[in-house]
Amino acid sequence: MDKDLEPPHYKILNKAREMEREGKPVIHMEIGDPELSTDRRIIDAMYEAALKGYTHYGSAQGIPQIRIAISNYMSEKLNIEFTQDDICIVPGSKSAIYITLKTLGNKRERNRVVVLEPTWGIYYSFIRDLGYEALPIRLGMDNRWIPTKEDISKIEDSDFIVVINPSNPTGVVFNKEAVEMIVEKAMDNDSIIIADEIYFDLIYTSREFYSFFHTQYEKLVGLYSFSKTYAMTGFRLGWVLSKNKEFIRKITKGYQLLLTNVPEFIQFAGVRALELREIIDRNREVYRKRTRILSEGLKELGFKFIEPEAGFYIFTKVPEGFKDSIEFADKLLSQSYVAVAPGTAFGDYPGFVRFTTALKEETLREALERIKDFLGK
Amino acid sequence: MDKDLEPPHYKILNKAREMEREGKPVIHMEIGDPELSTDRRIIDAMYEAALKGYTHYGSAQGIPQIRIAISNYMSEKLNIEFTQDDICIVPGSKSAIYITLKTLGNKRERNRVVVLEPTWGIYYSFIRDLGYEALPIRLGMDNRWIPTKEDISKIEDSDFIVVINPSNPTGVVFNKEAVEMIVEKAMDNDSIIIADEIYFDLIYTSREFYSFFHTQYEKLVGLYSFSKTYAMTGFRLGWVLSKNKEFIRKITKGYQLLLTNVPEFIQFAGVRALELREIIDRNREVYRKRTRILSEGLKELGFKFIEPEAGFYIFTKVPEGFKDSIEFADKLLSQSYVAVAPGTAFGDYPGFVRFTTALKEETLREALERIKDFLGK
Repeated sequence: MDKDLEPPHYKILNKAREMEREGKPVIHMEIGDPELSTDRRIIDAMYEAALKGYTHYGSAQGIPQIRIAISNYMSEKLNIEFTQDDICIVPGSKSAIYITLKTLGNKRERNRVVVLEPTWGIYYSFIRDLGYEALPIRLGMDNRWIPTKEDISKIEDSDFIVVINPSNPTGVVFNKEAVEMIVEKAMDNDSIIIADEIYFDLIYTSREFYSFFHTQYEKLVGLYSFSKTYAMTGFRLGWVLSKNKEFIRKITKGYQLLLTNVPEFIQFAGVRALELREIIDRNREVYRKRTRILSEGLKELGFKFIEPEAGFYIFTKVPEGFKDSIEFADKLLSQSYVAVAPGTAFGDYPGFVRFTTALKEETLREALERIKDFLGK
Repeated sequence: MDKDLEPPHYKILNKAREMEREGKPVIHMEIGDPELSTDRRIIDAMYEAALKGYTHYGSAQGIPQIRIAISNYMSEKLNIEFTQDDICIVPGSKSAIYITLKTLGNKRERNRVVVLEPTWGIYYSFIRDLGYEALPIRLGMDNRWIPTKEDISKIEDSDFIVVINPSNPTGVVFNKEAVEMIVEKAMDNDSIIIADEIYFDLIYTSREFYSFFHTQYEKLVGLYSFSKTYAMTGFRLGWVLSKNKEFIRKITKGYQLLLTNVPEFIQFAGVRALELREIIDRNREVYRKRTRILSEGLKELGFKFIEPEAGFYIFTKVPEGFKDSIEFADKLLSQSYVAVAPGTAFGDYPGFVRFTTALKEETLREALERIKDFLGK
């Protein structure tokens, strides 16, 4: 990570947008924005709510209707009972991470945050921004990006442990053993776990998902979103889940202070979405297919990576002949108009890059062609 | 202000919402949420944009369409030339204040912030939250809440000066002289001025508005919103204005990090709104009438205040017989279900309360009846 707060892939993103304005045919594989439309029925529900007058200030925690719908969904999915009181509605997980770290931090001068990396780089941005201290645990590709006993043994005493599972950027899903080892460490050190489980409903294997909530650990906050499952990135709609009433109260107050509330008509879009769960199944199938296409294409070009089991990213070694991922990403963008996220956006991984697979089949094939030409293959 | 970050009127607001859930017929005069509908054409524009596919991640600064529309509007209104580069779209002024104070703060341990009070209490919350130091300048009702030479002479060296004009809570509009005195002080001390001019297009007198932008001061950030003029509080849509490129760049980066962007379909609602400027004129007339009704009613009941010239608040002395505004607000809510904001929410004004006037005529008359009974008149 570089010294300022901005994750390195923002530099690529902003450069890519600039090139687009200049008329260049950029393919965006650096951000996780699916090339997929929001279901019209969800948009209709938002419209109807706005017409009904849900255009005023509202409660920071969110309307009861969406919190009830989410608690039912999560209860069914995880087979754990949740209620609307366990939920706070958020406009995206960035603010959720920031406000959670900020409002649940203790009074210590520098809160300590264990980060299992590779991870979404925004965690480091916020840790630095808040004046907290990051304690990275660097996972390796050798164990398929799953934490080993040795990795876990390196976890020091800390205020927070942040973990993304299913993983962004690797797309692997931690097994029960790994999750339980992390929780044990958290218990030992009385650490709050922030479990970013945003991709939990986009798993392609038949293996059952073992959520951090299955451990029944009490100092736990989960992050979830409509963005990916429902192709609703632009709605800015997600939720924080916790059975810890004090956590939900503090996070809600943080939101009330900073943002008042998520527009209520947008929340009604979420209510409708949760009535249309078949959309998740449909989109999961689309993402699975797209991921396979890119995966096969990249393998043919000689890229080395672990096959993703969930989500829509491929975290791969940079091909030989490049100094590091920044050089690779820069050149690929400048020469072939394909934007990818350098590995340093996810921790200490200068030898890796992340590709988004959530693009249309034709876009993926075009990207693969360009990468092939770029590599001179 | 009490010790925690929460402005005192949130306590009233949250208590009022709880009482409502219990079925009590609460009248909300504690927040500035107009009892007025968003024009249907604005909602239609949002719907159309969502159907067109503006449901993806976007630029943190905002879509060019809305920034161009706003720059034209502001150029016309203030007779100063603005461009789209002078604008960053924001989801409400709370986050705008927070991010402006945070990203433009210098490296000093404790940034110093001069606050002309009475002011919107949220400023104090953020100053405290950021670990900055507030230097309040307490204006008085004797000079109609306009800063005097003596008031201005008390302004110390600081990093920021924050000022709301037209004023929330008093509804007065500063004259040119007052604005220029403040700017002179800012120049002397090289302070950044944050000018919250959200009510500038809801002025009821014929006197021309003298914006802080008319002074051409370079270290200036203005805050504006669709919330009040267009009755769009629940859309969470406003903008930051500055001719200082560095300021806009830093604020935009702050937003990108924390919130990605304001939903683009919401921004298209704003584009449509600015094509329908007659709505502002229509709403201004509604607010003017409502303000007069409440003003006359409160005067009849013996309340002492300066007649507001803009916006939709009345900042009045608490009637005799109450210890302070907290007691008055608490009792009025508990006994008569009328919620008002205690004066301590706006600075060191325990003897004052703020009423919102933006409610329907019948609601205002009902509130006046209840207040009359409450006071035993």
